[in-house]
This record gives sequence, structure tokens and C-alpha cells, in this order.
Amino acid sequence: MSQFWSPIVRTLTPYVAGEQPAISTLIKLNTNENPYGPSPHALAAMREAVEDGLRLYPDPSGLPLRTVIAETHGLEPDQVFVGNGSDEVLAHTFQALLNHDKPLLFPDISYSFYPTYCRLYGIAYRNVPLDEVMRVNIADYRQDCGAIILPNPNAPTGIALPLGEIETLVRDHPDQVVVIDEAYVDFGAESAVSLIKTCPNLLVVQTFSKSRGLAGLRVGFAMGQRHLIEALERVKDSFNSYPLDRLALAGAVASWQDRDWFERHRDLLMNSRERLAIGLRDLGFQVLPSSANFVFARHPDKSGMELLHALRERSILVRRFAGERIENYLRISIGTDAECDKLLAALAEI
Amino acid sequence: MSQFWSPIVRTLTPYVAGEQPAISTLIKLNTNENPYGPSPHALAAMREAVEDGLRLYPDPSGLPLRTVIAETHGLEPDQVFVGNGSDEVLAHTFQALLNHDKPLLFPDISYSFYPTYCRLYGIAYRNVPLDEVMRVNIADYRQDCGAIILPNPNAPTGIALPLGEIETLVRDHPDQVVVIDEAYVDFGAESAVSLIKTCPNLLVVQTFSKSRGLAGLRVGFAMGQRHLIEALERVKDSFNSYPLDRLALAGAVASWQDRDWFERHRDLLMNSRERLAIGLRDLGFQVLPSSANFVFARHPDKSGMELLHALRERSILVRRFAGERIENYLRISIGTDAECDKLLAALAEI
Repeated sequence: MSQFWSPIVRTLTPYVAGEQPAISTLIKLNTNENPYGPSPHALAAMREAVEDGLRLYPDPSGLPLRTVIAETHGLEPDQVFVGNGSDEVLAHTFQALLNHDKPLLFPDISYSFYPTYCRLYGIAYRNVPLDEVMRVNIADYRQDCGAIILPNPNAPTGIALPLGEIETLVRDHPDQVVVIDEAYVDFGAESAVSLIKTCPNLLVVQTFSKSRGLAGLRVGFAMGQRHLIEALERVKDSFNSYPLDRLALAGAVASWQDRDWFERHRDLLMNSRERLAIGLRDLGFQVLPSSANFVFARHPDKSGMELLHALRERSILVRRFAGERIENYLRISIGTDAECDKLLAALAEI
Repeated sequence: MSQFWSPIVRTLTPYVAGEQPAISTLIKLNTNENPYGPSPHALAAMREAVEDGLRLYPDPSGLPLRTVIAETHGLEPDQVFVGNGSDEVLAHTFQALLNHDKPLLFPDISYSFYPTYCRLYGIAYRNVPLDEVMRVNIADYRQDCGAIILPNPNAPTGIALPLGEIETLVRDHPDQVVVIDEAYVDFGAESAVSLIKTCPNLLVVQTFSKSRGLAGLRVGFAMGQRHLIEALERVKDSFNSYPLDRLALAGAVASWQDRDWFERHRDLLMNSRERLAIGLRDLGFQVLPSSANFVFARHPDKSGMELLHALRERSILVRRFAGERIENYLRISIGTDAECDKLLAALAEI
């Protein structure tokens, strides 16, 4: 606390990201990074962009990247917004589109950054509990509200809603913005992007950090009709003219265009996920059905904290969240098969 | 306008950055970029960082960069905050440290992003007019206020205050945060960083975009006592866990460490500035005394708009700002001597 702080600073509860250890010998299954890394074409494009041209500001609106993303989805570039990681895109979304008189709705068990954004921008919110099997029940969202945000698949459960249910949710609330946060959508869920043309209230947010193996580059994006994207642009242009640097733009464009690398490694990862889920179930774990690049699992005889520490002692990092219904679960990112095998061996030992 | 926008979005007047043209044959003297580009060591470090490790999130607090900056100035790493360009650092500063009951003070002619930040965060502000020779007069700031922000050198005038006057300003306001925005300080002004140890209310903001030739990489930083930096960290950790990507961190560290490249090209640029100022005066221009990498100049017989367009027709971009006292000035970034010569030749022709 300091007399110099703006009053808002005193009320913040900053988000705590998963550990980024300096020791590289650890098996890091705690922050949902992709074990396969970026496309070689993306690496080549970034190397090429490392040149004297870095003296010049980048394209302020990230047009080259917006253009390739739009083309893939049959959208126009001005229906795409890009930012410095999907966390920045979400921050602008909370400020630009989710702050209304009535409360914002999101699941009680969800991305734990959402309440942090709400505090940063003074947004009233109401949690909607997951049902008894940890699923989002869209009927529970039929209530008076200012807007809705929902990850699909949800985090940290990994459970996805089918597109039909997302569509019902969006159409149930024609006067409210509905944001579908698709950070993990590429690992087996259906994107809501096909609904954008007919749903003026839908914003879809995605990232290059997970399925494109570029967590270290910080690129995220949102797609929606023009009036929604314009709100994000207005906030962005009141915050930072050039959020994406030249290397991030070059790398993201090339990564997006290498569809083959993306699909091949996405499939590998999904196979590893099913293999890991079977291995965990064999060890007595309950594993929620995951459509993400992680599984959410608990063991009936061991607490989450106990398992977390026992794994850490064996140089394996996973993530555990506080909260009554989830504190005994571990969120385990999908590594290579070799990493998953080491995890299973360590758990068998424990 | 859209029913889906948060109310704040309707009130914004986004900042308009200088043009970033797609045509590379233009002589670009409009956004204060460095004609010499980044240190070769910085380029090498970025190339090396383009590898599979990009699959992993970067260091969330940018510790390697904070450490080298702190060492240079005899500070601790937790007295340095780093962000995605100094525009992002400034945005967090406005939200975290400049929002108080009483109005924020800044010069009426100054960085035109400041009022934009104020609107974004609902900050009351009062402009303090420059004196009759376009200088900041610190006696004019002896008034009741919530906080103060001042570029030194000021933009777009380029005029610097000596360190003694900055110190008086900071000590005049022991109960208010005073932010000195030193985006251009390396081109001949004195940094206030030496005052940090004894001034708990001082925050100094700098950037890699100008004197380090890395506008395209987006790296800025702030220095101050711990309690001020903590406020920035709290806002940052409520906004985006990882603002600086792995390539930006690697490039900025190496750039910072190449003191020789920095000093050599800074000196070259300052020589070109004096040469350009003489050339402009020979053509009848009034040129304000600049300590920045630009000059602010007007011609008694030609309007700013007229000159802007005539130069544009000759493939030379400079910048002009609206506003009664400055609309006839051009802000001309310092290019290479060859670029400055082309500008002078074009102006002679006009």
C-alpha cells in the first residue's frame, strides 16, 4: 500500500500464472504449453524478420495477420482483432464489451483470470455453478445479465460443449454480448466461428499459444462482426498503438499458413491425451473427458496438494487450483508420450 | 456505436499514430524512428532466440531485462518495470498511479496520447500551458493536483528541462507522483534516474524504440522506488501475465548491453540534428532548440499543412499536429544525413 497508488490498485487481486521455472531439467506439464513447438516455417519467417527493419514501428493494426485469419474463416480483416496474447485480447474485451449495468455471467469453475479482469475494470459479475458432473449447463444462463463469457472447452475441466449448445446460448441472449473463449478449441472441440455471420452478439477469442506452439511469442485474436471488433480497436488505440511487434506478426502469419504442421501435431497431441487418460484411469484416477491439451484428474485416495508435491519432488510440474470442488484435481498438460510415461511412472510410485 | 459496447467505449477518442506506409520508397521522417537500426548484437540474440523454446511462455516479469537495466543505474531489479512498448508502460502508469481525486497535470502541448489515457481510465486532468517560448515552466505546476506527468525532452517541441528543474518539480510535490517520460532523453537531455533513490514520488519511463532503434520490437520500461513499481506490477498481473515475448526480451537485453553501438549512433544522430537545424534556419525556418531525435520547426511564410502536403508529394513524410500554437510547425524526425539533405532540397524547392 502506498499513498501514491490510484485507489483501484488497492482492490486488485492479481492473477497468478503457473510457474515458469529457470531449471530446464523439469518436466513441465503445468501451463498447457505445446510439446512440439512452432512450425519450422514460422521459425524461418521470424529469423528473416530479425533485421534492420526492426527500427521501424510495426503495422499498428496487425493487418497481415488479420488478413490470413479472415481468409481461412471467410471473414473480412475488419472482423478480426489481434493482440499481445489472448490475455490482452480478453482484457480489452472485458473493458470494451463486458462492462454493463447488469452483471457478467461466467462459470464458477473457469479461467481464473476472469474475476481478475472484472476487478481491474470494476465489472459486476455473477458465477454460474457447473452441474454435478462439472459441465456447463446452458439452461442455467437463462437469467437477466449484462453479458456472458465462457471458455469452450472449459478450463480447467477440459470439457467441451457441442456447437449446437453454444448456438442456443448465443441465440438465447440476442441483446447481450456472448464471448466464447476458445483457447483450447483446436484439440477436439467445435469452434463457434461459423456462427459469426448470423450472430451480431458473438465474439470468439483464440490464441497461438497452445495449438500453434507459440506461447513464447504472445499472439491472440478475436473474431466477430465489425461493431464488436470496432469496440476492441477503440480501446486498443487508447492503450497501445502497436501491440504486436514485427517478429510476432511475421511468425504468427507463417504459423497460421502452415496448416499441415498444425494438424499433424494437434493429432499427435490428441492421441497422447487419450493414451494418458487411459494410463491415469488404470492407476485409479477419475479423469474428466477432455477436449483440450490437458486433462483434469483426481485420485480418490490422495489429495491434490499431496500429489502436486510428490510429483514436484520427482521433477514433474503440474497445476492444482484452490476451490472446494476442484482442490483435489490436478490439471496435467499433455506432453510428449515420453513425458506422459514419466508422469505415469512417477504416479505409480506415489 | 452499438448496444453491445461498454459505456466507456462511446467516450473514447483513440490516439492516431503517425502513418506507417506500405511503400518503402518514401523517406519516413514522421514517427521518430532511428535511421541506424538496432545493435548487431541485439539482432544476433534475437536470431538465437528463434527456436523451439518459443513453445514455452516467457519470463512473466521480464527479470533478465529488469536485471541489466537495474545494474546500469545502481537500482534493484524490483525498481524496474518492463512492458510491451513505453505506451503500454504509460497506460499502466495512468491506471495505477495517476488516477486520484484531484486532477492530473500535464503540458497543453505534449505527447498527445496523455488525454487519451485519461479518457480510457476516467482520469480528471488539467493542462498547464507552455510559456511564450514553448517551454515548460515548472513554477506553473505549483498548484493543487493529484499527480503530474511531463515528457523530458517535451514532445513535440523537443525542448528539454535541466535536471535541476526536474528535481525542483519532484520535490515541490512530495505527496504526488511525478512521472518523467524520457522517451527521447538519450539524445542530449539529462535523465532523472539519479533522483530515484531520494525521491519516493518519482517514476521515470523510457523506451527502446528511439535511441536503441527497436521501435518494431515494442519494449519500454519504468524505474522508481519499489512501492511505485509494485503498483504497476499489480495492474500488469491483472491485465496480461506475459507482456514481453521471448524474442523481445532477448533482443532488449543484448541491445542494452551494447553500450558502444548505442553511444556511437546516438552521437551520429545528434550531429545530424544540428546539421539539419542549420539547414532549416538557412531556409528561413524557426527551429526550436531540440534535445530529441526530431526538430520542431515552422516557416514564417508557409502553413504547416501546405508544407506537409508539398513534402508528401515529394515522397517525404513528416508530422504535423493540430492545435492553435503548433499547427504551422512540422515535427521532423532526424534521418541519415542523406535523408536530411533530401528534405532540405525538397524544402528549398517548395
